[in-house]
Amino acid sequence: LLCKQIAKDKDKLPIYVGEVGPVWSYPENQLDCVVADPKKGSKMYGLKSYIEYQITPNTTNRPVNHRYKHFDWLYERLLDKFGSAIPIPSLPDKQVTGRFEEEFIKMRMERLQGWMTRMCRHPVVSSSEVFQLFLSYKDEKDWKFGKRKAEKDETVGVMIFNTIEPDAPELDPLEVEKKCEQFSRFTKAMDDGVKEILTVGNEHWKRCTGPLPKEYQRIGKALQNLSTVFTSSGYQGEATLTDALTSAGKTYEEIAQLVEEQPKKDLHFLMETNNEYKGLLGCFPDTIAVHKAAIEKVKEGDKLVATNKITPQDKGTMAKRLSTMSYSLQAEMNHFHSNRIYDYNRVMQLYLEEQVKFYETIAAKLREAHSQFTTM
Amino acid sequence: LLCKQIAKDKDKLPIYVGEVGPVWSYPENQLDCVVADPKKGSKMYGLKSYIEYQITPNTTNRPVNHRYKHFDWLYERLLDKFGSAIPIPSLPDKQVTGRFEEEFIKMRMERLQGWMTRMCRHPVVSSSEVFQLFLSYKDEKDWKFGKRKAEKDETVGVMIFNTIEPDAPELDPLEVEKKCEQFSRFTKAMDDGVKEILTVGNEHWKRCTGPLPKEYQRIGKALQNLSTVFTSSGYQGEATLTDALTSAGKTYEEIAQLVEEQPKKDLHFLMETNNEYKGLLGCFPDTIAVHKAAIEKVKEGDKLVATNKITPQDKGTMAKRLSTMSYSLQAEMNHFHSNRIYDYNRVMQLYLEEQVKFYETIAAKLREAHSQFTTM
Repeated sequence: LLCKQIAKDKDKLPIYVGEVGPVWSYPENQLDCVVADPKKGSKMYGLKSYIEYQITPNTTNRPVNHRYKHFDWLYERLLDKFGSAIPIPSLPDKQVTGRFEEEFIKMRMERLQGWMTRMCRHPVVSSSEVFQLFLSYKDEKDWKFGKRKAEKDETVGVMIFNTIEPDAPELDPLEVEKKCEQFSRFTKAMDDGVKEILTVGNEHWKRCTGPLPKEYQRIGKALQNLSTVFTSSGYQGEATLTDALTSAGKTYEEIAQLVEEQPKKDLHFLMETNNEYKGLLGCFPDTIAVHKAAIEKVKEGDKLVATNKITPQDKGTMAKRLSTMSYSLQAEMNHFHSNRIYDYNRVMQLYLEEQVKFYETIAAKLREAHSQFTTM
Repeated sequence: LLCKQIAKDKDKLPIYVGEVGPVWSYPENQLDCVVADPKKGSKMYGLKSYIEYQITPNTTNRPVNHRYKHFDWLYERLLDKFGSAIPIPSLPDKQVTGRFEEEFIKMRMERLQGWMTRMCRHPVVSSSEVFQLFLSYKDEKDWKFGKRKAEKDETVGVMIFNTIEPDAPELDPLEVEKKCEQFSRFTKAMDDGVKEILTVGNEHWKRCTGPLPKEYQRIGKALQNLSTVFTSSGYQGEATLTDALTSAGKTYEEIAQLVEEQPKKDLHFLMETNNEYKGLLGCFPDTIAVHKAAIEKVKEGDKLVATNKITPQDKGTMAKRLSTMSYSLQAEMNHFHSNRIYDYNRVMQLYLEEQVKFYETIAAKLREAHSQFTTM
């Protein structure tokens, strides 16, 4: 398992040791793309219809079209090729009823955009031939040819480790094990943390779109109703009060609407980001399992040499490979951390910004309602 | 029933016709009092203990002490004497277990204050001998003497109408009936409106002190928990993010507390005012029933004259009395309306003012939390 050797020079994946530890080689200009403009297409004289998305990379600035199933094809290729070393997050859910509904298409596009952005940001994934093909094939022929080639790619599974070349001294297996344990603990803990946020967020979403606005609406109606009763008193000179009461009631109805619409403006992105991370973190156990299996193999090394199952030289190669795997995992973790810091910073800022606006809008509306009552 | 005649000159209750219609005669300086300083007292060598409140009227500025049972005695006297013409609201609930607990004493005092303020504001009630006695008796002897005298007062029940002297032309019975119907409709409608607010307010109270703060607390905990996980990453340079996340989490815990404490600051007074009005409105059906019975009697007048049960002169007296009752009811309604406008204006202002502060405080806290994240 640890001992095959292939890899052309251009496919080499270097790892450098930077300030934070082992890191992948990052391109100077980060790849990015825009997923937009979903269009209904059809095949076989309209018998089969589908949605096609337009993807425009910042490199060529030339849009290419892809259906969901092409994304899925790309996902399978990336998983085959890099899955042992790099967590490749799943695509948004495959198929649900009503997949031509506008709301669904919008949501799927948003999530495909999120997935593509994450893949573009990954230096290894984004520079791979298959990913480049997906983003910038020239024509149908180019695409078909590239597809066939990618499907025949033999550097899949653990083979990927053969292409990785750390520019650093070999690591001690004990050090490797320690690092691996640490990553395992961290990803598990973060998985729990993310799931907790998702649970709490879901409950909050339900409350904000369910009972809470209904309650504000009832408060609003009750005030307006009291105003109507007061108007019927026949007593002179209470128009100021009844107008103010009506307006306060309407304000609470407006607040009901604000409350109901707010989650779409802030909680939505917090949930989407955490959902993405839940997906990413779900890939780590497999990656870490591959790693742990290799550690065990190397630990068995002495026994294998003693029973003449491998040569001492083989054992040395195995330890070197394990070191490479560890550099790869460390580079990946560092990639993950730097993205995590960026993503959570951004999403928390967005969330809090919108929350501030929300509470300020309500305060302003209530201040306006307050000003309509008479000071006596 | 309609025909007895007594009333000393000093007990006469004039009604004038003002801009809004018939009104009681209002004193130049409005009586007011402060209920404060509840103290535990005891009797029979400490065998019986009770709470005594200090009541200080703005007229004498000299405090008098009264136990709850004295308030109850006053209530009974006012109800006997004025109940047919003036709605005398019930006192706060009589007795509950734990009546020496601080929270209960505070709440009862607040409600006794509300009741006294309302009675002080009423021109007829506040100028009555028994009410003046309660507020400004000189010593124990004075109080005992006044009590005996008040208990022997014969101007009780419908007798009160004999003392009322409207300074206005006699009203047509049809006009009286129309007015009465209108008041009946209005008080019923307002009773419904007030009860609706109380129901909605109660639900809102429960949500604000129950599930809502718990949810904000869980959001806060989830963010802080994520921050702890992030801290354990071993990745360098994420202190800014983890500090900001912790602080955002704490902010949501603070919001939880604000949400939980808010109802005591605003909804409480809205509820108390509406509770007072519910009590007041509950008195109107009886007052209106007395009125309607009188209308029926006058309608029967012709028949009674025909069967020689009453003289035509008696019939005239009855119609005059009914007119007096109607003036009294109208004066009372106008008193009610002017107080209602004042009270609802005040309580809505207070409510909205505190609500504005609440939302502004939250917005400020979130803005502070937002500022701790890095802009990248």
